[in-house]
Amino acid sequence: SLEDRIGETEKGDFDHFMLKEIFEQPQTIEETFKGRLNPGYSEIVLGGLQNVFPRIVDARRIIIIGCGTSWHAALIAEYLLEEYARIPVEVEYASEFRYRKPVIYKDDVVILISQSGETADTLAALRLAKNEGALVLGICNVVGSSLARETEAGVYTHAGVEIGVASTKAFTAQMTVLTLFALKLAKEKSTISAKEFDVLVKELAEIPEKGRVILQQNHRIQEIAAKYKDAVNALYLGRGCLFPVALEGALKLKEISYIHAEGYAAGEMKHGPIALVDDNLPVVVVAPQDAFYEKIVSNIQEIKARKGNVIAIISEGDSGLGELADDLIEIPGSQPALAPLLAVLPLQLLAYHIAVLRGCNVDQPRNLAKSVTVE
Amino acid sequence: SLEDRIGETEKGDFDHFMLKEIFEQPQTIEETFKGRLNPGYSEIVLGGLQNVFPRIVDARRIIIIGCGTSWHAALIAEYLLEEYARIPVEVEYASEFRYRKPVIYKDDVVILISQSGETADTLAALRLAKNEGALVLGICNVVGSSLARETEAGVYTHAGVEIGVASTKAFTAQMTVLTLFALKLAKEKSTISAKEFDVLVKELAEIPEKGRVILQQNHRIQEIAAKYKDAVNALYLGRGCLFPVALEGALKLKEISYIHAEGYAAGEMKHGPIALVDDNLPVVVVAPQDAFYEKIVSNIQEIKARKGNVIAIISEGDSGLGELADDLIEIPGSQPALAPLLAVLPLQLLAYHIAVLRGCNVDQPRNLAKSVTVE
Repeated sequence: SLEDRIGETEKGDFDHFMLKEIFEQPQTIEETFKGRLNPGYSEIVLGGLQNVFPRIVDARRIIIIGCGTSWHAALIAEYLLEEYARIPVEVEYASEFRYRKPVIYKDDVVILISQSGETADTLAALRLAKNEGALVLGICNVVGSSLARETEAGVYTHAGVEIGVASTKAFTAQMTVLTLFALKLAKEKSTISAKEFDVLVKELAEIPEKGRVILQQNHRIQEIAAKYKDAVNALYLGRGCLFPVALEGALKLKEISYIHAEGYAAGEMKHGPIALVDDNLPVVVVAPQDAFYEKIVSNIQEIKARKGNVIAIISEGDSGLGELADDLIEIPGSQPALAPLLAVLPLQLLAYHIAVLRGCNVDQPRNLAKSVTVE
Repeated sequence: SLEDRIGETEKGDFDHFMLKEIFEQPQTIEETFKGRLNPGYSEIVLGGLQNVFPRIVDARRIIIIGCGTSWHAALIAEYLLEEYARIPVEVEYASEFRYRKPVIYKDDVVILISQSGETADTLAALRLAKNEGALVLGICNVVGSSLARETEAGVYTHAGVEIGVASTKAFTAQMTVLTLFALKLAKEKSTISAKEFDVLVKELAEIPEKGRVILQQNHRIQEIAAKYKDAVNALYLGRGCLFPVALEGALKLKEISYIHAEGYAAGEMKHGPIALVDDNLPVVVVAPQDAFYEKIVSNIQEIKARKGNVIAIISEGDSGLGELADDLIEIPGSQPALAPLLAVLPLQLLAYHIAVLRGCNVDQPRNLAKSVTVE
C-alpha cells in the first residue's frame, strides 16, 4: 500500500518501525508538550478543552474508556486523577462498557482513548455515553478521526504516524496528555498545592531528557533479552501507577514475541501467580525507590526464594537490589506519578529485542491489526 | 495440626478436599439462602444489614474490595449492581486501594470481601475506608473474624470450613450473597420491575439444582482434562459478568496446576492475546446463549482459524457450537445475571482434574497459603 511505501522510506537507520518509534519518544513527548506545558509559567494549556473545562471541574465522576494499550493509559490516569484532582475515576474496557447497562450521569465526564480514533468498540462506547448526556472527550492521535469528530472536545497526542502494530510512542503520548490533564484539573480544583504542582510540571518537562538516558541502555537491554528469549512464560509486576505499566510491558511481549506474559499488581502475587514461579520463569519487576520499594523488594525475595529469574527496573544508583535480582535496568529518579513515562521504555525495548531474537515480525505480528475497526 | 486432622476425617469419599468442596456447592449455596431467600414470598432478608440498609439505599457509590478470588466476586457484583440497582460501583484490589489516596466520600458504601476475614490488605483497606467515614460492610465466611468484628455490618457466607487452598465453595457463596444483595438493593430502590425481581429470585433458588446437573458431568470433564493436561499455557475468555468468571477459571488452573492461564474479556482478544493463539494453545471460552452469543461465536471462529483448541462452556442443547469447538461442556440455561454461579463449576472441575493428572498437590499448592495474613 501507499502507506507502506511512505513508511519504508522513513525507517531510516532502524531495523524496524517499532524500534524507530521507541527511540522517537523523547521527541514525541516534547511535541505533545508544545503549546501546552510551559514550566516557566507554571501553567498548563489544553486549548481543545478550554470551552468545556468548567464542566470538567464540576464533574461528579470521570469515566475513562479504551482497549488494549489505551486501557493501560487509562488505568494510570486513574491513579493520577484520584490522587491529585480528588475526583472518582472509573476505567473500563470499551467492549464491556458498551454492552452492559453502565450507570452514566449527565454530570459525568467520559474520556475515550484510541490511537487511531477508529476503534469500533470505543466509538460505540462514545455514542452510548453521549446519548446519556455525559460530556464526552477524546484523546487520539489521528487528526480528523471519527473519535475526534464525534466527541465534544478533546486533546490530540502529537506522536506522529505510528506504524508498528504494537503501540509505543502513541502510549507515552497518551500518558503525557493524561498527566497534563490531571495536573491542570488538580490546579483548577485547588486540590494540589502550588508547590507540588510546580515540582510536577518541572519534572514532567525533564521526562524527555531522562527518557534519552534510558534509551542509551539499548545494548544492555539487548543482552538481557538474549538470556530470556526462549522463555515460554513471563510475569510482570508493579505497584501503584506502575501496576498498569507492568500490564503494558507484558502486553508488548505478548503481542510481538508470542511469549505468554502476564502483568499483575505485585500485591496480588500471593493470591495466585506465585504458584507459577520456578526456575524457568522470568519475572520483570518494576521496582524504583518509591513508597512501595520495601514491599517490592520483599516480592523479589519471595520470587528468588522460589528460584524465579528477576529482571528489575530500578532507580539509577540503587545498589540494594544488585545482589538480589538477576538483571537490572536503571531508570532516572522522578516523582512517582511520572515514573510510568520512564519505566515503560525499558519494557518496550526488552519486548522488542526478545521478539527480534526469536525471529518474529515485530512490526506486523501475527493475528494483530494496527487498528481494530471491527468488533 | 488439629485442623488438618479434623479435615482428614471429613474428606469422605473424595480424593481431595477441593473436589469435596466443589461438590458441596449446591448445598452450600442453599445454606447461604437460608432465612434470606424465600422465593414464595418474593422477598430477600439480609438480617445483618437491616439497620444500615437505609444508608445503603441512599449511597452515592459502592466500592468493593478484595484480593484474588474475592476480587473476582466483586467484579461480577459490579455488573449486577450497576445493571439492577443503578448505582455506580468501583472495584479494587485491596493491596492497591490501601496505598494510593483513593477518593472516599462519607456517603459511599465500602464492601470488603474475604473468605477468612483475616486478609491483611483487605483489613487495611477496611480501616482506611472507615477512617474516611464511609459505611463499611463485610462479606466473609469465618464467624468472628477480624473483618466481621471491624465492619459496621455484613453478611456471612455459610460455606462451612474451606480447606482446599484454591477457593471454590467460598467463591460461590460470596457470589450468592452478592446476588441477593444486588437484588434486594434493586428492589428497595425500585430500579427493578416486580416481574424481573420475581423471575430472578425464582431462578436463583433453582441454581443449586442446576449445579447438581453440571457436577454430573464430572467424568466427562475429567476426559477433557486428560487432553489438555500437558499444556504450558491457556487462555480463558468471557464477556459481561462471565468475564470475571473467565478470570476465576484461569486463576484456579494457575493456582493448582501451575499452568500459566490468563483470563481476558473476550472483546479484548484482538488487542493483544490473539497473537498467542496457535495449535498449542487451549482456549476456554464461556459461551452460553446470551446476548453476547454471536460475538463469542465469532471469537471462537477467530481462534479456530488460527488453530487454537477451544473448550467451550455452552448452554444445554446448543448444537450450533458442536462443529466449531473441540470440546463442549454444557450448563443449564439461566438468567444471564445468574450464569456465573453455574459457569464457574465446570472451570473448577477442569482445573482440578488437570492438576490431579499432572500429579500436583491440589489441596496445598506450592507457594500458596490459604489465607494471606501478611502483606
